[in-house]
Amino acid sequence: MKQLVDKKILNEVIEERSKDSHKGNYGRLLLIGGTYPYGGAIIMAALAAVHSGAGLVTVATDRDNIPALHSHLPEAMAFDVKDKDRLKEQLAKVDIILLGPGLAEDDLGLELLETVLGQVKEQQILILDGGAISLFSKVTLPLPQAQTIFTPHQKEWERLGGLALAEQLDTANQEAVDRFAPGTIVVQKKPGTTLYQSGVVDCYQISAGGPYQATGGMGDTLAGMIAGFAGQFSKTSLFKRVLAATYLHSAIADELSQKAYVVLPTDISRKIPSAMKKVTEE
Amino acid sequence: MKQLVDKKILNEVIEERSKDSHKGNYGRLLLIGGTYPYGGAIIMAALAAVHSGAGLVTVATDRDNIPALHSHLPEAMAFDVKDKDRLKEQLAKVDIILLGPGLAEDDLGLELLETVLGQVKEQQILILDGGAISLFSKVTLPLPQAQTIFTPHQKEWERLGGLALAEQLDTANQEAVDRFAPGTIVVQKKPGTTLYQSGVVDCYQISAGGPYQATGGMGDTLAGMIAGFAGQFSKTSLFKRVLAATYLHSAIADELSQKAYVVLPTDISRKIPSAMKKVTEE
Amino acid sequence: MKQLVDKKILNEVIEERSKDSHKGNYGRLLLIGGTYPYGGAIIMAALAAVHSGAGLVTVATDRDNIPALHSHLPEAMAFDVKDKDRLKEQLAKVDIILLGPGLAEDDLGLELLETVLGQVKEQQILILDGGAISLFSKVTLPLPQAQTIFTPHQKEWERLGGLALAEQLDTANQEAVDRFAPGTIVVQKKPGTTLYQSGVVDCYQISAGGPYQATGGMGDTLAGMIAGFAGQFSKTSLFKRVLAATYLHSAIADELSQKAYVVLPTDISRKIPSAMKKVTEE
Amino acid sequence: MKQLVDKKILNEVIEERSKDSHKGNYGRLLLIGGTYPYGGAIIMAALAAVHSGAGLVTVATDRDNIPALHSHLPEAMAFDVKDKDRLKEQLAKVDIILLGPGLAEDDLGLELLETVLGQVKEQQILILDGGAISLFSKVTLPLPQAQTIFTPHQKEWERLGGLALAEQLDTANQEAVDRFAPGTIVVQKKPGTTLYQSGVVDCYQISAGGPYQATGGMGDTLAGMIAGFAGQFSKTSLFKRVLAATYLHSAIADELSQKAYVVLPTDISRKIPSAMKKVTEE
Repeated sequence: MKQLVDKKILNEVIEERSKDSHKGNYGRLLLIGGTYPYGGAIIMAALAAVHSGAGLVTVATDRDNIPALHSHLPEAMAFDVKDKDRLKEQLAKVDIILLGPGLAEDDLGLELLETVLGQVKEQQILILDGGAISLFSKVTLPLPQAQTIFTPHQKEWERLGGLALAEQLDTANQEAVDRFAPGTIVVQKKPGTTLYQSGVVDCYQISAGGPYQATGGMGDTLAGMIAGFAGQFSKTSLFKRVLAATYLHSAIADELSQKAYVVLPTDISRKIPSAMKKVTEE
Repeated sequence: MKQLVDKKILNEVIEERSKDSHKGNYGRLLLIGGTYPYGGAIIMAALAAVHSGAGLVTVATDRDNIPALHSHLPEAMAFDVKDKDRLKEQLAKVDIILLGPGLAEDDLGLELLETVLGQVKEQQILILDGGAISLFSKVTLPLPQAQTIFTPHQKEWERLGGLALAEQLDTANQEAVDRFAPGTIVVQKKPGTTLYQSGVVDCYQISAGGPYQATGGMGDTLAGMIAGFAGQFSKTSLFKRVLAATYLHSAIADELSQKAYVVLPTDISRKIPSAMKKVTEE
Repeated sequence: MKQLVDKKILNEVIEERSKDSHKGNYGRLLLIGGTYPYGGAIIMAALAAVHSGAGLVTVATDRDNIPALHSHLPEAMAFDVKDKDRLKEQLAKVDIILLGPGLAEDDLGLELLETVLGQVKEQQILILDGGAISLFSKVTLPLPQAQTIFTPHQKEWERLGGLALAEQLDTANQEAVDRFAPGTIVVQKKPGTTLYQSGVVDCYQISAGGPYQATGGMGDTLAGMIAGFAGQFSKTSLFKRVLAATYLHSAIADELSQKAYVVLPTDISRKIPSAMKKVTEE
Repeated sequence: MKQLVDKKILNEVIEERSKDSHKGNYGRLLLIGGTYPYGGAIIMAALAAVHSGAGLVTVATDRDNIPALHSHLPEAMAFDVKDKDRLKEQLAKVDIILLGPGLAEDDLGLELLETVLGQVKEQQILILDGGAISLFSKVTLPLPQAQTIFTPHQKEWERLGGLALAEQLDTANQEAVDRFAPGTIVVQKKPGTTLYQSGVVDCYQISAGGPYQATGGMGDTLAGMIAGFAGQFSKTSLFKRVLAATYLHSAIADELSQKAYVVLPTDISRKIPSAMKKVTEE
């Protein structure tokens, strides 16, 4: 059955921080993407993750892309995505891996996907987005040994789920999701974004958002928020955290759209800290 | 006859977005320019296009210019303008092509103009601005196979229209415009910017704007807004969309000039989403 | 006799713009400087010039410095300061030349100074600041064939005027200034900045400013404002325009200091358009 | 005995500036760090130092990192950290040296530490942070010939003080601090950050701050503020200046947290000038 997700999910998930906590308690994130010519995408994902409260964010991207990233966000560490030793070292250390915003579907992209899938471990959370989904759909690769979240838009879901656009109905979608390892989460992005989890009967539709979000980079920002939330709020299930991030992303867009015909992804990121604060005051 | 364009044009053109729409509905744009030493121009055009609501904006510019572009606008994709294969691929895919903001009048500029004119198709919209107009006026090239918009300032119009400054009166201007393919639009930028369309009797003067706009980059921002509007609002004619973009550009400047002696082009871009929103609320 | 400069100078100089004007009426400026390791200085000068209403601003700086410049100010054109042909071409074209903010005192700096002095013409306005003053004081060079403005701080004035700090009293200062060509302007920067003109009896002290301005980059911003004002307001004398720019620079700092312990140079630049607007409303 | 530090420390330290002062009165600072892949850290430290009122800030960092630094802060000079001659020249000139924000623990990092320790003089203030502390703990190096401040987080203090986390109690901490030269200051960063000085009985705990600060870059910002305060307010002791900077850093975070779930380090920096101004008005 389809459930509607409304603002109650935010109160369930977003909690006041404990006084004795430190940045290690809020997730170590590794964001991989932004390869030529898509550098901006990983910048938007990183902006979203940091503003969502992530403890430590490291970005692996084209070396040429690092100055632009740091011009937005000196808060993130950043290294050359071709620096294999460092990539492996980081993959071993972090709690959350987001692969795909602005990942070109080329040899480097495939190599990165293989490296990540080969090294990721059960207790880590892996988010596959954008180019990583397309590449994953094209080649035969083992399912990741991690709690996995896919964030496809409709075209990417066609390939990943093996369902033509017209067939993307809830029952068929759920069946496709159930072919992944139990617990795998799929965020199907569309007007009325819907979330599925492998092995769970209900799916969840976000009751927020609108056409003012129809602009490039919106999905990269969502992926960054999901990564940010995944590294926090461990008292609630991963699925609820993803629901909360996805709802909040559109809820902020709704609010901004009161005064803007189109809502830019980076505008959403800047609003995350105040929107989260409001939740804790209710 | 000369018609005055006032704020009614905004209500005619800017419409509420359909709930089921996605970014593909709001135009795929390719912006080409910003070659050395004019990198900033294409950044301003891209800022204007994205803030106008364009669905997907891709920029072809000097590779060295990409970090600065992304520091303003991670929302845009960007590739090296010398990357010919990618340029051809993008030219084949997009709905709107804007060539010229910050295009140096050198061999590369000419090659780019020839590539675009050689590949552009009837159903695409081509906007020629700045350096592209100067180059087009200098060499003998076939008229583009596309719905074409020229955005010359007075000096550029001298060369393009073959009319000395003193001769640039409405009748002579209209005659010069009529030599282009029917439907071709000319935005003649000056104090009292006037728009002409080949084969149409009336011309249209913008009843907004002022000398606070007399600063470098103003035209690049206008070109980006025209590109942004050209990719949306398909219920109204292309000419009306161009009128609306041109009017809005100056109307925002008028509003900002209430509190500023000089209005910066990038300040205009930041105001576009709220200005468009106000139109839909009237 | 020393005159005090107060806000009346702003009303004398800043005038409403004529409706038929275009960017060519507000000055073509060439700003040269920002060589390693002082890249930021020319960025601050350019920000100040554009916000002061300059029509067209072109910057010659280290090629590596262009992305940072454009990240602040896509409104400025920018080229490699080592690109000699382009430098000569620009020097021939512009109305105002500002040489010196962030100009390293090395061989390149000296070569640039020699090029500028060799090419500058009588009807152009030349502003020598920072490194250009130090270099000019060190070597024997012909006085420039242009309306010249020097903007030394106390140490630079020691070398340029040949006056030890303790000797820098008004009479001695005036005598030193009188050794330059008639009309040459010296802006001696200090607490109580004072302006002198060769051949003029009175000197003018700015009755604004304070110690919240004691931070790096303040002088670069002032130099940019002087360049911006020099290209406008041709109904008043150049000396008055320089007085107005210098007064406004400190007056904005005073206003910002109501809410800030220290005033950043870039904060001043952002306030220029609104401060100038207020003057025209009085 | 442990003393609580509250807002009274700000009134003790932050004083109105003298009218006749200039930027040389507010400290010449050299900030060294931000080596690959940690470029953002030194940007955050520099932002904090300049907003704290530092007179002149020079940054030694990776050459690739300079454009991003200047995109935030043209007010800072910046040179290639590998440029040894310039480094030595700067080390000889400045009042305050901050080494460590974003300093990679590699051969270059060690070389920089050795250069600094070998050249620093008694009358200079040296702040060792981040990577500089880790490197200092690993190798056997002479204690610096300068007034020294260490700013370790708990892990770094483990190594520097030779105290396992469970042993980091006030008495043991004080004993470890007393092994450094008299007057050496240790800022032990943790929830309830505490400051010790070698040879002083009391330690001082900051009564401000919270878990909204648990995000990457917070410590780099603190280090920059300490450097900024160290170069000013010479009427009060260095220890009090460090207390004031550390208290203010957390007090601003507290204020921002009224409207934000997480407080970004760069947001703190932007608030420093207004927060300091308020202190002088009380």
